[in-house]
Amino acid sequence: MIKVGVVGGTGYTGVELLRLLARHPGAQLHAITSRGDAGMPVSDMFPSLRGRVDLRFVTPAEAALDQCDVVFFATPNGIAMQQASDLVNAGVRVIDLAADFRIRDIAEWEKWYGMQHAAPALVAEAVYGLPERHREQIRSARVLANPGCYPTAVQLGFLPLIESGAVDLSYLVADAKSGVSGAGRKAEVHTLFAEAADSFKAYGVPGHRHLPEIRQGLVGMAGAPVGLTFVPHLTPMIRGIHATLYAKLTKDVDVQALFENRYRSEPFVDVLPPGSHPETRSVRASNICRIAVHRPQGGDVVVVLSVIDNLVKGAAGQAVQNMNIMFEFDEMLGLDVVPVSP
Amino acid sequence: MIKVGVVGGTGYTGVELLRLLARHPGAQLHAITSRGDAGMPVSDMFPSLRGRVDLRFVTPAEAALDQCDVVFFATPNGIAMQQASDLVNAGVRVIDLAADFRIRDIAEWEKWYGMQHAAPALVAEAVYGLPERHREQIRSARVLANPGCYPTAVQLGFLPLIESGAVDLSYLVADAKSGVSGAGRKAEVHTLFAEAADSFKAYGVPGHRHLPEIRQGLVGMAGAPVGLTFVPHLTPMIRGIHATLYAKLTKDVDVQALFENRYRSEPFVDVLPPGSHPETRSVRASNICRIAVHRPQGGDVVVVLSVIDNLVKGAAGQAVQNMNIMFEFDEMLGLDVVPVSP
Amino acid sequence: MIKVGVVGGTGYTGVELLRLLARHPGAQLHAITSRGDAGMPVSDMFPSLRGRVDLRFVTPAEAALDQCDVVFFATPNGIAMQQASDLVNAGVRVIDLAADFRIRDIAEWEKWYGMQHAAPALVAEAVYGLPERHREQIRSARVLANPGCYPTAVQLGFLPLIESGAVDLSYLVADAKSGVSGAGRKAEVHTLFAEAADSFKAYGVPGHRHLPEIRQGLVGMAGAPVGLTFVPHLTPMIRGIHATLYAKLTKDVDVQALFENRYRSEPFVDVLPPGSHPETRSVRASNICRIAVHRPQGGDVVVVLSVIDNLVKGAAGQAVQNMNIMFEFDEMLGLDVVPVSP
Amino acid sequence: MIKVGVVGGTGYTGVELLRLLARHPGAQLHAITSRGDAGMPVSDMFPSLRGRVDLRFVTPAEAALDQCDVVFFATPNGIAMQQASDLVNAGVRVIDLAADFRIRDIAEWEKWYGMQHAAPALVAEAVYGLPERHREQIRSARVLANPGCYPTAVQLGFLPLIESGAVDLSYLVADAKSGVSGAGRKAEVHTLFAEAADSFKAYGVPGHRHLPEIRQGLVGMAGAPVGLTFVPHLTPMIRGIHATLYAKLTKDVDVQALFENRYRSEPFVDVLPPGSHPETRSVRASNICRIAVHRPQGGDVVVVLSVIDNLVKGAAGQAVQNMNIMFEFDEMLGLDVVPVSP
Repeated sequence: MIKVGVVGGTGYTGVELLRLLARHPGAQLHAITSRGDAGMPVSDMFPSLRGRVDLRFVTPAEAALDQCDVVFFATPNGIAMQQASDLVNAGVRVIDLAADFRIRDIAEWEKWYGMQHAAPALVAEAVYGLPERHREQIRSARVLANPGCYPTAVQLGFLPLIESGAVDLSYLVADAKSGVSGAGRKAEVHTLFAEAADSFKAYGVPGHRHLPEIRQGLVGMAGAPVGLTFVPHLTPMIRGIHATLYAKLTKDVDVQALFENRYRSEPFVDVLPPGSHPETRSVRASNICRIAVHRPQGGDVVVVLSVIDNLVKGAAGQAVQNMNIMFEFDEMLGLDVVPVSP
Repeated sequence: MIKVGVVGGTGYTGVELLRLLARHPGAQLHAITSRGDAGMPVSDMFPSLRGRVDLRFVTPAEAALDQCDVVFFATPNGIAMQQASDLVNAGVRVIDLAADFRIRDIAEWEKWYGMQHAAPALVAEAVYGLPERHREQIRSARVLANPGCYPTAVQLGFLPLIESGAVDLSYLVADAKSGVSGAGRKAEVHTLFAEAADSFKAYGVPGHRHLPEIRQGLVGMAGAPVGLTFVPHLTPMIRGIHATLYAKLTKDVDVQALFENRYRSEPFVDVLPPGSHPETRSVRASNICRIAVHRPQGGDVVVVLSVIDNLVKGAAGQAVQNMNIMFEFDEMLGLDVVPVSP
Repeated sequence: MIKVGVVGGTGYTGVELLRLLARHPGAQLHAITSRGDAGMPVSDMFPSLRGRVDLRFVTPAEAALDQCDVVFFATPNGIAMQQASDLVNAGVRVIDLAADFRIRDIAEWEKWYGMQHAAPALVAEAVYGLPERHREQIRSARVLANPGCYPTAVQLGFLPLIESGAVDLSYLVADAKSGVSGAGRKAEVHTLFAEAADSFKAYGVPGHRHLPEIRQGLVGMAGAPVGLTFVPHLTPMIRGIHATLYAKLTKDVDVQALFENRYRSEPFVDVLPPGSHPETRSVRASNICRIAVHRPQGGDVVVVLSVIDNLVKGAAGQAVQNMNIMFEFDEMLGLDVVPVSP
Repeated sequence: MIKVGVVGGTGYTGVELLRLLARHPGAQLHAITSRGDAGMPVSDMFPSLRGRVDLRFVTPAEAALDQCDVVFFATPNGIAMQQASDLVNAGVRVIDLAADFRIRDIAEWEKWYGMQHAAPALVAEAVYGLPERHREQIRSARVLANPGCYPTAVQLGFLPLIESGAVDLSYLVADAKSGVSGAGRKAEVHTLFAEAADSFKAYGVPGHRHLPEIRQGLVGMAGAPVGLTFVPHLTPMIRGIHATLYAKLTKDVDVQALFENRYRSEPFVDVLPPGSHPETRSVRASNICRIAVHRPQGGDVVVVLSVIDNLVKGAAGQAVQNMNIMFEFDEMLGLDVVPVSP
């Protein structure tokens, strides 16, 4: 039984982490911090946790996080980079669900995130926590950068194509659609129900923060530059990401076999039979990524459909998967659930 | 490990039952029948079950249901009453999620359900599976009538008030709202997305089949006639029932204490603090019923707010709870999950 | 052609007012004020108005509202009461869509709205703009208090029963359900999509500001005290209110005829045939109130179902209807549209 | 005042057509046919039309359609082609909202629609009713093929780029998202609320019937072959299409100016300012198409965002626009409304 701390438990990734950790057989919730809500029972803010999580929010000072085996940061960008060093030096392993350690190029990070980085050395050390790519490095990571939601869906969808050199890297398109919980639990007008329901829109077309993260990942797979166009959209559902990916084949491969072989032993990637169209609800509340791959009319354009739950495989679930790998638990421990559908 | 059969696994209560049973530590799924879809892998119809339920639908003949310890009927009304006798005679215990065994007055049942009853003797023997009322009889039930969704939310909301004789029985109002999954997985126009989304309506005001079931339950609690007005509504959400109940107090009781005392030891009923307003999402995908009780402006009208997930505590979850009681499992076995919210 | 000013055009009632006034044949939009957004084209904030409303927001100083024939206040509570006197003295008629002039009892108003009233004399003079009750007084009103959304749906539903003395006034129940736009266009967590979608809850059970407004209206109809229990609910749709009303008949009346006779000549109240269940979408984007009346199982409980679009008949549309009456236009001018369904 | 007939008024395009025609100043609804529902008041099926459309459905025999000036077919595919000849010979102009006359290549049509064409000669004569491309031919059309919903959004989005020869025609991507009303008012499981809500999926990736229609249109603009990949998606909203289009520029053009110049005088196409992201709700219930055009990071990939209401500009509204052109009405007559938002 490892001792677990959570910093910033008041957002959607925070409460989802609590949902998963509360029933994890190998983890014990030690402390949940919130400066603003210290003293409040967690279940007062999240009634879904009543009777399942009995902790109160505490201040960072009260939390004694250095006694934890692992600390999750479910905070806004820019917080973990300030606190991680002390924890790591105290022997605590850190899993950051925000973006602080995801981009290796510090200047690039600072451009997209609009602040100075406080811990460049930790960025150099940090492991990018996409288990399907970096499982070995994850085992020994002291600082783990948990991938973003869009980057998870998009990278898993492109991975077999790029690793195998099957597609033209100069022109990749990722048209991605997210549920509104991806925007976080912040009081803002544009994500109000009466704004976001019964409507659909793109956003961030000139440039979205997940673009450099995805590009870095694809370049890593390719060992070469990639030309990526990434367009995110807001869709009127609570959870779920659907990435529709387009690429041109440069050789005539059996794309179905390519995907099946690549993901055969992955516990959380499910390659669907030919002709399938995965629905986001088929992975709701689970850590599964389901993928279908098509060559419409048998042509040289390959279309990949990749779905995840943005709060689970796209955030809290993948973080727990990474924790399982880091602490040598069974990788599915606490995550072996059946998606909730309908 | 008990052997479990499911008859009619192609509706929403069926797939929800599979979701819960697939991870139940004490139950083994033996067979799932569907005349129309025999031979098809269950997960072809319900992709959310891929990798979690590996069975195929079988015909009733192939199913060898008489080798099960318990058989669930997740069928339309009128099916279980034709098959239950043979199973019971073979020593198999039966849990019917439909309405065949819920109404003790056969003539009343036949009036509301529009068919002749095929097994009146089993009705006389059947136990009504609301554990909070009938736990002792449930232990030894051979035929269990699993309550309807509205009846569960409404009865649990009225129970402490009626058992304690605190309210005027002549005029009770139950204004109930259900998610659309309550209408089942049937191809019909009025439950299409483009019909039911972004809109709200009452239905069945002249008379709904759950009225006699609720009335029978309340009369049983009261030992006297009750005057009940029941109005169900369709609300644009997938899961969830919210019952808003109105009654006049006949004596000045502490309604909060009344509810807390009555449900103190119930594992699946959560009485909220004074002033609360439960949301249906706070019980999503769980077997919990959350209840708040109010006396607006301190008057003699009591307002009870009672929420459940119609597919769990209102159907499949309560059925598993009843199975746990019948087979002397821990009552929370397989049901001790955290609701999915947001 | 009358000159129209709108104070506070940045909320949902404001934009809805602009939608209706932009195509009103007898009204010319003179100025739309917003302190915070002065200078911005209105259609930058509300792209749905592009090409239809070409004005910019102006400051109150620039607006020259005293040159208008009528000024609408689509502001938060407490604004109109500070500005109305000057306008009225300048000969401008005022229609307030907020609550400043709705409650005749100043002390009661101050209790529920938590502020001191700035213009008690105008309250005494103001006309409550429910045309079906006060059409004659509306014609000559200088200050018009446009009714709240819940109060409109509830009062129109109870009106024929109370005016005719058919029901027990001591115990009336109004169980009302609103779309989320009723909460306004304010950045708040509880009305975010990911909070309010796919869920249902009651709120304000201990006491809601529309309670004294409804009660005042019902008392006015009855000429006697009424005992009213009012429970509002939040439902996951954008627009629409559904009020489900319960009362006990004190005499055996033909409730269908009662409603049809009362509303026969009303242009915006539609009494449905016996056995009907109005859907909120059947009045979407229109000024219509549709009502069905039931006596379940022929008993002495009468159930009224009353639906409106909260932003139209519950706010901006009724305000335009009142303007039409005040300026002797055809009452349906600019409002004679077909609801948008699906 | 022209006399208008509607064949097949029981689907969503039918009721939308009635909504628009009921208030059209130049058109008089003469007859609405429905074999299955003849005799029923139209407003019994569609309560939103109560008091606005007083007709009953009639049989085709009763309808005397040959006395109409124009007949709209809002029928399933394959009906109009059987009835249009007689009408045209009787001097009645025909507007088909289905696909019978859209594809000029009969063999191609028969392949995608799975039936033999009954009126190839009329296909040769028919005019494809995209006013922004074919306004002149529409004026004198006897048979008008009203475009499909996806084809309208996609063609209007690609039009300026292809007409101007600015993009690589060999690899165009149209990633399109539709509200569920696009699937029609048919009792089917996959469009039930509990199936389609709170979820997102692609469909028809191997091939969708709108692909050949779009391709034919783009080829017509280009005068050359085009390589098009078209992926439609189902999104949990009632109305709306959002097309996200990707192309590679072959020359360095000012795409914003290109779009603005092309659509300057179009009454129903609105080119948004640079950097915009149109929402489908900004055109809800209106005939407007709003378009934004981007070059992310100033590269050579152009991204076009094009939104319409699938039932209006994507069906009934465009049909009325075509009627206006054919009968020399002002093109905006009856369509000059403000979109309904929120």
